Amino acid sequence: MRIQIVMVFAWFFASAAVAGPNLILTEEGVEEIKATSEFPALFSKAMETAKARVERSMGEGIIVPVPTDPGGGYTHERHKENYKIISDAATLYQLTGDVEYLAHAEAMLLSYAAMYQDLPLHPQQKNQAPGRLFWQGLNESVWLVHVAQGYDAIREDLGTESRNKIEQELLRPVADFLSAGSRRTFQRIHNHGTWAAAAVGMTGYALGDKALVERALYGLDGDGEAGFLKQMSELFSPDGYYTEGPYYQRYALMPFVLFGQAIENNEPERKIFDYRDGILRKAITATIQQSYAGTFFPINDAIKEKGLDTQELVYGVAAAYALSGDPGLLSIAEYQGATVLTGDGLKVAKDLAAGKATAFQYTTQLLRDGPSGDQGGLGVMRMGDGPMAQTLVAKHTGQGMGHGHFDKLSIILYDAGREILTDYGAARFLNVPSKEGGRYLPENTSWAKQSIAHNTIVLGEESHFGSDWRRGQESWPIVDVFEQVDGANVVSAVITDAYPGSMLRRTTVQIDMGAEHPPVVVDVFDAEAQSRTMIDLPFYFEGQLTDSSLALAREGATLAPLGDDNGYQHLWVESTAASKDGAASFTWLTGNRFYTYHSIASAPATYSVVRTGANDPDFNLRSEQGILLRLKHRKNARFVSVFEPHGVYDPAQEFTFESDSRIEQISTHQNDGAGVVILDFKSGERVVVAFADKPDDGTAKKIAINAETYEWSGFAKVFRE
Amino acid sequence: MRIQIVMVFAWFFASAAVAGPNLILTEEGVEEIKATSEFPALFSKAMETAKARVERSMGEGIIVPVPTDPGGGYTHERHKENYKIISDAATLYQLTGDVEYLAHAEAMLLSYAAMYQDLPLHPQQKNQAPGRLFWQGLNESVWLVHVAQGYDAIREDLGTESRNKIEQELLRPVADFLSAGSRRTFQRIHNHGTWAAAAVGMTGYALGDKALVERALYGLDGDGEAGFLKQMSELFSPDGYYTEGPYYQRYALMPFVLFGQAIENNEPERKIFDYRDGILRKAITATIQQSYAGTFFPINDAIKEKGLDTQELVYGVAAAYALSGDPGLLSIAEYQGATVLTGDGLKVAKDLAAGKATAFQYTTQLLRDGPSGDQGGLGVMRMGDGPMAQTLVAKHTGQGMGHGHFDKLSIILYDAGREILTDYGAARFLNVPSKEGGRYLPENTSWAKQSIAHNTIVLGEESHFGSDWRRGQESWPIVDVFEQVDGANVVSAVITDAYPGSMLRRTTVQIDMGAEHPPVVVDVFDAEAQSRTMIDLPFYFEGQLTDSSLALAREGATLAPLGDDNGYQHLWVESTAASKDGAASFTWLTGNRFYTYHSIASAPATYSVVRTGANDPDFNLRSEQGILLRLKHRKNARFVSVFEPHGVYDPAQEFTFESDSRIEQISTHQNDGAGVVILDFKSGERVVVAFADKPDDGTAKKIAINAETYEWSGFAKVFRE
Repeated sequence: MRIQIVMVFAWFFASAAVAGPNLILTEEGVEEIKATSEFPALFSKAMETAKARVERSMGEGIIVPVPTDPGGGYTHERHKENYKIISDAATLYQLTGDVEYLAHAEAMLLSYAAMYQDLPLHPQQKNQAPGRLFWQGLNESVWLVHVAQGYDAIREDLGTESRNKIEQELLRPVADFLSAGSRRTFQRIHNHGTWAAAAVGMTGYALGDKALVERALYGLDGDGEAGFLKQMSELFSPDGYYTEGPYYQRYALMPFVLFGQAIENNEPERKIFDYRDGILRKAITATIQQSYAGTFFPINDAIKEKGLDTQELVYGVAAAYALSGDPGLLSIAEYQGATVLTGDGLKVAKDLAAGKATAFQYTTQLLRDGPSGDQGGLGVMRMGDGPMAQTLVAKHTGQGMGHGHFDKLSIILYDAGREILTDYGAARFLNVPSKEGGRYLPENTSWAKQSIAHNTIVLGEESHFGSDWRRGQESWPIVDVFEQVDGANVVSAVITDAYPGSMLRRTTVQIDMGAEHPPVVVDVFDAEAQSRTMIDLPFYFEGQLTDSSLALAREGATLAPLGDDNGYQHLWVESTAASKDGAASFTWLTGNRFYTYHSIASAPATYSVVRTGANDPDFNLRSEQGILLRLKHRKNARFVSVFEPHGVYDPAQEFTFESDSRIEQISTHQNDGAGVVILDFKSGERVVVAFADKPDDGTAKKIAINAETYEWSGFAKVFRE
Repeated sequence: MRIQIVMVFAWFFASAAVAGPNLILTEEGVEEIKATSEFPALFSKAMETAKARVERSMGEGIIVPVPTDPGGGYTHERHKENYKIISDAATLYQLTGDVEYLAHAEAMLLSYAAMYQDLPLHPQQKNQAPGRLFWQGLNESVWLVHVAQGYDAIREDLGTESRNKIEQELLRPVADFLSAGSRRTFQRIHNHGTWAAAAVGMTGYALGDKALVERALYGLDGDGEAGFLKQMSELFSPDGYYTEGPYYQRYALMPFVLFGQAIENNEPERKIFDYRDGILRKAITATIQQSYAGTFFPINDAIKEKGLDTQELVYGVAAAYALSGDPGLLSIAEYQGATVLTGDGLKVAKDLAAGKATAFQYTTQLLRDGPSGDQGGLGVMRMGDGPMAQTLVAKHTGQGMGHGHFDKLSIILYDAGREILTDYGAARFLNVPSKEGGRYLPENTSWAKQSIAHNTIVLGEESHFGSDWRRGQESWPIVDVFEQVDGANVVSAVITDAYPGSMLRRTTVQIDMGAEHPPVVVDVFDAEAQSRTMIDLPFYFEGQLTDSSLALAREGATLAPLGDDNGYQHLWVESTAASKDGAASFTWLTGNRFYTYHSIASAPATYSVVRTGANDPDFNLRSEQGILLRLKHRKNARFVSVFEPHGVYDPAQEFTFESDSRIEQISTHQNDGAGVVILDFKSGERVVVAFADKPDDGTAKKIAINAETYEWSGFAKVFRE
C-alpha cells in the first residue's frame, strides 16, 4: 500500500517540471546533465559516490543527534556527514527526478528545523566563535554553505508548510546566528569571516532574500568595511596569494569559489569574476602553483598531507575550468580523480575523457603578499620539467596573521619528488580526539611556530618579532630581486626589523647544471645584529646522514636539549663538532638521491645534528632532524650554503652511483659590495655565482681573485667555465 | 671506406646462418623473437634498454679499468656495467644480426682477456673470498654468469684467434679461479657457492667442456658433496624456503634459475626442473610469497627496499612462467615493468599484452625451513583480498647461517599496505662507499642482529643463543600448529634452547572481523626462564603515538640508553611508566589508520617508549621507535597482546573516524592447560580466543568464567557472541 503511494508520488513529481536551482548547480547544468546519455568516468564516479552516501543514509534513517562532541567526535562527524547527505540528496533529486531523494533531504532538513532554535551554544566551545551544531562557528558556516545548496535544489518542490518551517526555523536562524549573532567573526577579514559571508549570502539567494545577500557582500553595517567584497580585496594579494599560506588558502578558497559562482549565476551584472582584475581565478591558480608532488607547501600552520586532491580544490578546478578552459586544469582533475555534480563538473569530466588534458604549467614566479602586493612575497623557483621539477620555495612573505610562523626568509627545497629541506608544518593531528580534540597542540606554539623550527637565521636564541604575531603583522621582507638570468633563478630579500636594530638578507640562486645533473642551489645569508650575540642557522632534512667532513660523533651516553625556550627546548643535540674555518659538508640520502650540504660560515663555527622530541611530554612532535650551524658571540655573519643533489641509490637494482659530491672545492670572496661563490667540480667545470650585497644600484661590479676577474652589472650573474 | 667494409661484413653475417646460442637465450627463442613483427610493450622496453646501454658504450669506447675500487666505487660499478654490456651486445647481435654489436662484445671480451691473467687479488679484498676484478669473488661469479651468456651468443661467429684468446685467457682462467682457485667458497653450501657453481657450469656449456659442467654439478671432488645439486638439496626447504630468508633468496635464486635453465636447454635428460619434486619452481613462487606491497619480508640481514622488481626476480618470473604458465605471474611481471630478452621474456610480454594476467594468489602458508622441512618454518598468515591483505609473518625458522638474526619467534605485521610491527632489517647502505664501502656496518652486529631489535622475548638482557649463530644453527623452534579455524589463522611454536633451561612459546591468532573492519591479531607469548631474570618484550612500530592508557610522559631534560650491551646500548629510553596490574594500551597512527596495541602482562610491568640512535657514533642507525614491556625478576611470564587496526585518518578529506579503539575491555584467563582471551567490543560484540597451552593432545578443553563456559577440542577455537 505504502509502496503504491510512493510510486504515484514519484510519477507525479517526475512528470512535473522540476524548477531550477541556481547556486552552483544551475538549471542549465541540470539540463545538460540530463541530456547526457553516458556519463564520463569522473562524473559517473561522482554520481555513484553521492548515491552511495544518500542510499546508505536512507537505509539508516534520519540521524540528527543533539550536538555534544568536539571535532572528530561522533556528533561532529555526523553533522558533517549530514550536510553532505542533504546536498547530495537534493542534487540527485534534480538530476534523476527521483522523489525518494527529495523526501530524504526534506525529512533531514525538517529534523534540523525542529531542533535548531532550541540549541544552546555548543557544550565543547573552546574559542571566541562557538557554533551550536558544532564546537566552532566555522563548521556551522560550512554546514550552511552545503545545506543552502541542498535547499536551493528542492525548494520549488516542497510543500508550503515544509518550506516555511525550513526557512523560518532553520535557514534564517542559522544565517542570523552566523551574521548578527556572531558579529566578531562575521565582520572579521579572515577565512572564518569568508565562510560566514558565503553561507549567509548563498542562503540569501536560496531564500530570495536580497537583504541577506547585501549583508554578506557588504557586512553587517552595510558599509563595505566588512563582507565578501572586502574579503576579496584584502585577503588575497594581487597575485592571488592568500596571506595565511596555501594550507588555509585552499580552505578559504572554497567559500570564495562557491559564493562567487552563486553571485555570477544570480547577479551576473556584478561581474564578480572580473573583480580586482579577476582575483578569484588567480587565487585558484595560485593555490595549485603552491604545491609540489601533489601536496601544498607546508608553510605556516599546515597539515602536511593536505594537497591538490582536497575537496575544496575539486570545486576550484571545476569553477576555474569553466572560466578559463585551461586544459592544464584537466590534468589536476585527473590527479584528483574527482569532480563535482554540476554542469561545470560534467564539462571537466567530458573534456578529460576526450583526452584534452595537458600538463599543468608549474611556473617560476613571485607571488606577492599583501592586499597591494607590497608586503613581501613567496618566491617559487622551479627548474626542470613537470611537477617533479626541482622547486625552491623562499618564504619572504608577511606574517600571515595568527596562523603565521616566525620564519622570515626561510626556505624549503624539493627535489626528485620529495621535500629535501623540510618545513615542520603544524603540530596538530586533525580531528583526532585524543590529541587535544584535533586542535593545534601546545607544541604548535612552543615549537612549530618558532624561528628555530625553520630553515632561517635566529639571533640570540629568540624568535623573530619576539614571537609576537601582531608585531610581525606590521612588517615584512622586501623582495629586491626575483629574476631568471644565465640559466639560474635568483631571489634576494631583506628584512631589518625581525630583531631590533638588525638586518637579515638572503640571496638564493638555483642553477641549471645541464641535462645530466640536477640543479644546484647556492644560498647566501647575511646577518647583522644590534650587538654581539649567538647566530644560529638550522637546516632540517629528511634522510639518512651518510658522510660529513667533520668528525661528527653522535652522542652515545646521554642526550640533552639545545636550550630552554623559544623552541630550543624541543631539540635534542645528537652531535656537535667545531669547524675552525667555519666550513663543513654533510651528505645524506633521501629516496634514491644523495644530497650534499656544503657550508662556509664567515667565522669559526659549531655544527650540531639536532632532533625534535625533547620536552614533549605527550609525544606530540614527530621525530625530525636537522643540522644547526652556530656562531657564538658575533655581530655579523655570512653563511654560504650550497645544496647539491647527486648520484643514484637504487637498492632494488643494487646500483649506487656518485654517492660522493661532484664538487671538489667551494670558495667564497667578498669585497666592495659584491661577492662570489666559486664551485669547482671534480670534472674541471667551474661555476661562479656573482652577486651584489644589495639590490642593483646600476653600477658595474668587479671582483678579482688571483688571476681571474669577474665583471658584471645588474644584481647577479652566473659564470660557467 | 671503413663504413663500406662494415656494411659488407654486415651483409655477410646477416645472410650467413647465425648458429644458435643455448644457455638462457636459445636458438628457438631467437627464431621466435625474429619472427615477431611487433614487440609487445615489455619486450620492446627490454630491447630499448639493451640498445641504449650498448650504444652508449659504443659511443664511449671500450673501458676496462684496472680494478682498484671497492663496492660502489668507480671500477666496481664499471665492471658491473661491462658484464651487462657484453651480455646485451651479444644478445642484440643474435636478435638483429647487426655485426657492430658483435664487434663491440668481442672487443670488450678481448680487453678483459688481455688483462685478466695478470691481475693480482683485488687490492680492496676484505673477506676470505676475494676476487680479482672485484673485491669479492661473489661479484666475479656474477660477472662470469653474464659474460658466459654473452660469449655463448657470439661464439659461433668469432674468428678462431679471438675465440682461443677469450676461452683460454679469460673464460677458463676465471672459471678455474672461481672453482679450483677458490676452493673454500666453491665447496660451500651457501649462495656464494651457488653463484660460483652457476658461473662455472654455464661457462662449461658455453665452451662445450663437460668436465667444467660436472665440476659445477658435483663439486671439485666430483663426489656430489658440493656443487649445484647439493646446493639444490640443502639450501631450499621442501617448500622452497631459503634458509637465509627472502632477501638472500631472491639473490640466491638467480644462479639457480639461470643454471637450471642452461642445464634444461643443454641436457634436458637431467630433468633438472623435476629435481626434488620441482624445487626450483617452488623456490621462485616462495620468493614472491615472501613479500608485501612489493617488498620482501625484511627478516635477517635484508635491505628493506628490496622487492619484487629486483632483476633476479625478472629472470625468475620469465623462467617460472615458461614452466607453469601461471597467469598470476604475469601480474608480477606487470608490477616489475620489465622482462628479459629471451624467448621466455617474449612469451611473458606477449601474454601480458594480451590481457592474460590475473592477480597473483598470495596465500596463507607455512614455509617449512631446513633441507628436510623439519627446522621450524616461516608462518605467513593473510586475511583479506589481494596483495594488501593484512599479513602476519611469524619467524619461526632456523637460524639462517651467518646472515641470520637472533630473533626466535619474532613477528612482523603488515596492514593497509604498510609495515605496522616492524623489523629493522640490516644496518647497511648498499654500495655507499662512505658507509664502510657499502658493507654491513658494525651496528648490524651490535644492533640489527640482536634479539632486542626484534618483536620477541629477551631474557636477562642477552640475545638468543648468546649471539652465537653457530650455536643457533643447531636448533630451531617447533611449529606445532599452523591452521585455519573459525575464520582465524593460528600459528603456535615453541623453542626450548634459545636460552639454557628455558621455554618460549608463542601462539598468534589472526581473526577475521567481517567486511567492515580489519582483522585483529591476538598474540600470546609464554616464557619460562631457568631462574628469575629480566623478561623483555619489545614491539617496534612506525607511526605517531596518539594515545595511551598510561601516564606516559616523554623525557624532557635528558635521554639515556637502555643498557650496555646486546643491542640495549642503542636504545634511548624516551619514556617509562609502570603498570601495577601489567595491563596497558597504546594507540598510534600509521598512514590512514589507527592501531591500538592492548597488552596484558602476567605481573606488574613497566612499559617504555624506546628509540634507536644511542651509541651510534657514525649515524649508521635509522631512527625507529618501539614499546618495550618489561617484567623484572621473574621466572615465568605470559604476555597477551592484541593488535587492533581501526578507524580512518584522512587529512586530505579532513575526515577522522574511530580514532579510539573499538574494544571496551580485554580479559584473559588460564587454567588446566588452556586459556582464553576475551575481547569485549563497545558494540556489544564479544570475541573469545581459546587455546591450549600446548599443542593438541586430543583432550576436550573447558574453561568456565563466571556464568560462561567455553568448551572445545583441538588446539584453538574462536567463539563469537
